[in-house]
Amino acid sequence: EKASQLQTQRDSLSQKLQETELRNTELECQLLDLEQRLENRRLESESFRKSLRSLLELLDGKIFQLTELRDSLAKLMESDSS
Amino acid sequence: EKASQLQTQRDSLSQKLQETELRNTELECQLLDLEQRLENRRLESESFRKSLRSLLELLDGKIFQLTELRDSLAKLMESDSS
Amino acid sequence: EKASQLQTQRDSLSQKLQETELRNTELECQLLDLEQRLENRRLESESFRKSLRSLLELLDGKIFQLTELRDSLAKLMESDSS
Amino acid sequence: EKASQLQTQRDSLSQKLQETELRNTELECQLLDLEQRLENRRLESESFRKSLRSLLELLDGKIFQLTELRDSLAKLMESDSS
Repeated sequence: EKASQLQTQRDSLSQKLQETELRNTELECQLLDLEQRLENRRLESESFRKSLRSLLELLDGKIFQLTELRDSLAKLMESDSS
Repeated sequence: EKASQLQTQRDSLSQKLQETELRNTELECQLLDLEQRLENRRLESESFRKSLRSLLELLDGKIFQLTELRDSLAKLMESDSS
Repeated sequence: EKASQLQTQRDSLSQKLQETELRNTELECQLLDLEQRLENRRLESESFRKSLRSLLELLDGKIFQLTELRDSLAKLMESDSS
Repeated sequence: EKASQLQTQRDSLSQKLQETELRNTELECQLLDLEQRLENRRLESESFRKSLRSLLELLDGKIFQLTELRDSLAKLMESDSS
């Protein structure tokens, strides 16, 4: 009688363990997937930021060239006596 | 004798189940943490993008105003007969 | 006889004087016209220059605003940790 | 007696003619000077205008390049899905 009870307990535990291990595997898959998405997001962000930095440097150049043009105009107006 | 063997199996399963459930809880915590980080990343990205969009609109305005200034200069040079 | 010679000289001188005075009047008209054109040219130049100076100040403003925009973009990129 | 009167008239006319011719020469000098100043003014104006035209073309170029930069930023923001 006690053996039968122990066997029932063992089977129940064995099944619950299987279920828990399955859930474990699922969670590990989800974790891997999320880590992959975070890493992709990070790489995209880095590439986006690199492009932005290039645009910022281009903008710096344009502002510098506009300032040179402005100085040329100011000098032209000073030099002209007409 | 058989009861003693079943009891050993049951205890072993019970311990393994505990360990697996613990691992499960850890994985769920990690998942929650990653999901939170992804969501934060998404909100930061959205806010960053919104700021960028404002700067793009400002840039549009500046380019439009520079074009108006350029047209004023062109008209001034055409109108002037000296 | 001498009186007749003197009269001829007087008449010739009188005619030459008339011609020279006419030429004088023409030259004075041309001078007045040129002086007027120079003055008009000067006023046009002054007005043109005033307009140019306004455009130069506008350009200064635009360059300043582009620099502010550039600084906002740079700060945005620094603050963003994503 | 009449000869003496005629001689006085002739001398008076001769002196007036000299004065008028001198005034003529002065006026012609002034005219030449003014014409030279107008021509110098015209050449300066032309050179000034040529320089302004170059600056206008430079400004066109800068506005075009800022517009390209703006389009690059807009495309970057559209392409980015993060």
